[in-house]
Amino acid sequence: MKARTPILAGIGQTRFTRWNDATTPSELQLACEAVLAAADDAGVPVESIDGVASFGGDRTEPPILQAALGLPELRLSAMLWGGGGGGSCGAVQLAAMAVQSGAADCVVVVRSLSQGQTGRYGLYDPNWWHASFTHPFGLLAASALLALTMRRHMHEYGTTSRQMAAFAMACREHAHRNPHALMRDRSLDLETYMASRMIADPFRLFDCCLESNGACAVLVVPWERARDLRRAPVQLLAAVHGASDGWSTGPMGSFNQPLDQFCTTGAAHLAADLYARASISASDLDVAQLYDNFTGIAMLSMEDFGLCGRGESGPFVEGGATRWPTGSIPVNTHGGNLSEAYVHGLTHVAEGVRQIRGSSTCQVPGAQLCLVTGGPGPAPTSALVLGAV
Amino acid sequence: MKARTPILAGIGQTRFTRWNDATTPSELQLACEAVLAAADDAGVPVESIDGVASFGGDRTEPPILQAALGLPELRLSAMLWGGGGGGSCGAVQLAAMAVQSGAADCVVVVRSLSQGQTGRYGLYDPNWWHASFTHPFGLLAASALLALTMRRHMHEYGTTSRQMAAFAMACREHAHRNPHALMRDRSLDLETYMASRMIADPFRLFDCCLESNGACAVLVVPWERARDLRRAPVQLLAAVHGASDGWSTGPMGSFNQPLDQFCTTGAAHLAADLYARASISASDLDVAQLYDNFTGIAMLSMEDFGLCGRGESGPFVEGGATRWPTGSIPVNTHGGNLSEAYVHGLTHVAEGVRQIRGSSTCQVPGAQLCLVTGGPGPAPTSALVLGAV
Repeated sequence: MKARTPILAGIGQTRFTRWNDATTPSELQLACEAVLAAADDAGVPVESIDGVASFGGDRTEPPILQAALGLPELRLSAMLWGGGGGGSCGAVQLAAMAVQSGAADCVVVVRSLSQGQTGRYGLYDPNWWHASFTHPFGLLAASALLALTMRRHMHEYGTTSRQMAAFAMACREHAHRNPHALMRDRSLDLETYMASRMIADPFRLFDCCLESNGACAVLVVPWERARDLRRAPVQLLAAVHGASDGWSTGPMGSFNQPLDQFCTTGAAHLAADLYARASISASDLDVAQLYDNFTGIAMLSMEDFGLCGRGESGPFVEGGATRWPTGSIPVNTHGGNLSEAYVHGLTHVAEGVRQIRGSSTCQVPGAQLCLVTGGPGPAPTSALVLGAV
Repeated sequence: MKARTPILAGIGQTRFTRWNDATTPSELQLACEAVLAAADDAGVPVESIDGVASFGGDRTEPPILQAALGLPELRLSAMLWGGGGGGSCGAVQLAAMAVQSGAADCVVVVRSLSQGQTGRYGLYDPNWWHASFTHPFGLLAASALLALTMRRHMHEYGTTSRQMAAFAMACREHAHRNPHALMRDRSLDLETYMASRMIADPFRLFDCCLESNGACAVLVVPWERARDLRRAPVQLLAAVHGASDGWSTGPMGSFNQPLDQFCTTGAAHLAADLYARASISASDLDVAQLYDNFTGIAMLSMEDFGLCGRGESGPFVEGGATRWPTGSIPVNTHGGNLSEAYVHGLTHVAEGVRQIRGSSTCQVPGAQLCLVTGGPGPAPTSALVLGAV
């Protein structure tokens, strides 16, 4: 491996909570806690961090984080455009670019959310730039926007609510084994799912991600520093970030795509690029962490990234393919946004690192290759492949 | 040169104007115009652009720019934190990282300002995060914040208003030869300078940058594409972006530095890193484009980047060192923020490219090495060295 090949050296996270009260830390406090945990996990002094990468919607300015943590020097202070979790994997790529080019030596990717401070994501936001075009039609929040995409998938391929429930229940089962998951002790069965209130047809309550407070951090360093680390290094085999014309103009998903691309996350071409860069194919993957703002969106990702054929995610999930330990490719082994916590997908990267290290609470035996995907947007989106060194 | 070594392939800019009226284009329109001009200058189809990099305060979302320009794919969509012109050179570094790592093949760095749309920079901004600490003391805008830094420099080293005037007049002389400069036909003499109103002591009107509308774009591609270009490629010899702890916490400059570092732009350590990466020393430079939000700040940059000794910028400038064609190192040969236009420093990068190409209107004969610096913040700041291939 080349000296500057980027590796994932450490992961850290805070306690996750659901509702703000007077004791909820600020986003800056949560970010600091996660970064300190990631440095400790890697076994490097926090002062060695010389870069911060983040993604759209972030509110933790790196120079403020630098001052709070006492970092002597900041050589990268960058973020990706695009909202929500679209850039979760792209931010890791950004950190990797800085490491690979020699611009920085130890870059932390961080996401912190304390939604009570600043407004929760599921609510109507009159400031969205596309509001004038979508709000008059009742498309007031992410759930409604993406409901159209999913309803079309059901129409085209016969996907059912029971199949979406199967994905939600698999994530919940995984969360039961994860002591940090918010839903670790809350069971979910088909009856409960079906009885839950409709948020935006076809998405019921249990199709929707949690809204939570918490932070997550991932540390990227060059291979030449691997010997100084506390843990086995995890290799970033490939990362991609991007948006095709057309997709980029949609508020979340897109409403002006050709019909055969309408009910996808728009990431199929990114997947091809990703696998080519990693020199693998989808069938080589052992495990996957797929961005799940909604059950159905993770299912469309399975199709875009070739875990199953186009239109086949419903039967694929219902047949148990994504369940640990028996499924052919366990998905969201931490519980995901649906049942662990919603930190805009960086927790998926952290779980990918745990799988390659062999330390997940739903460990896939001998996992060598893990796919991680970012959210469907607003575009761009992103993805990466993690591998054992 | 290696296949993926980043080179500056094209530059583009719009017409610069001073005041908005009903015909002033939007920031998006201006950005598109500058990007199209940069692609044309490089001789590449605009559709080959697959990345957009920008820096703090930018309001042109790359996916929107992508849709407006019809770019098939966007593989980088990133920006640097930090306000004003601090990231002008760092954004070029970001583009270079993407090219070097293979993440993208043709990245445009763009800055667009149509201040009438969104408020002008010289005005009081109650939303600055440091407002509670600085506004009660009258530090309402950049001019007042940086006036403290410059006043201290005058106290420590005997720097005078006449010396600051000398820098302003040199920039104005350069602007007289630049047909695109807003101040191309406005003369400036010492008497006029001295008679101009005080904005924030010691900064008079003519110490302050212009406020203007316009956009600038710079195209970065890998060396392996050099043969396809219309113009001689310009090499990015080195680029740095960063902030030291302490500097990063100040609103603009810093008020908690050791006294011996108070009247600097805080970039001396970045300069050392920059020259080491470029394998040059300051005395090798032929020409420099220094971020000049205020005369005095460009003068402090001369000291930080070793064009003259600490505290010597006053006599250095007054002695004519920065004047074209007779000075030992002409500075801001386009007229700079003071006399060409204020586009947050990306115009300085474009002028650096022209100097290396040999096409500046104040051309330094045979220029081989050009220093370009970003603004003093809010931190981080950045700088780069351009060289002939």
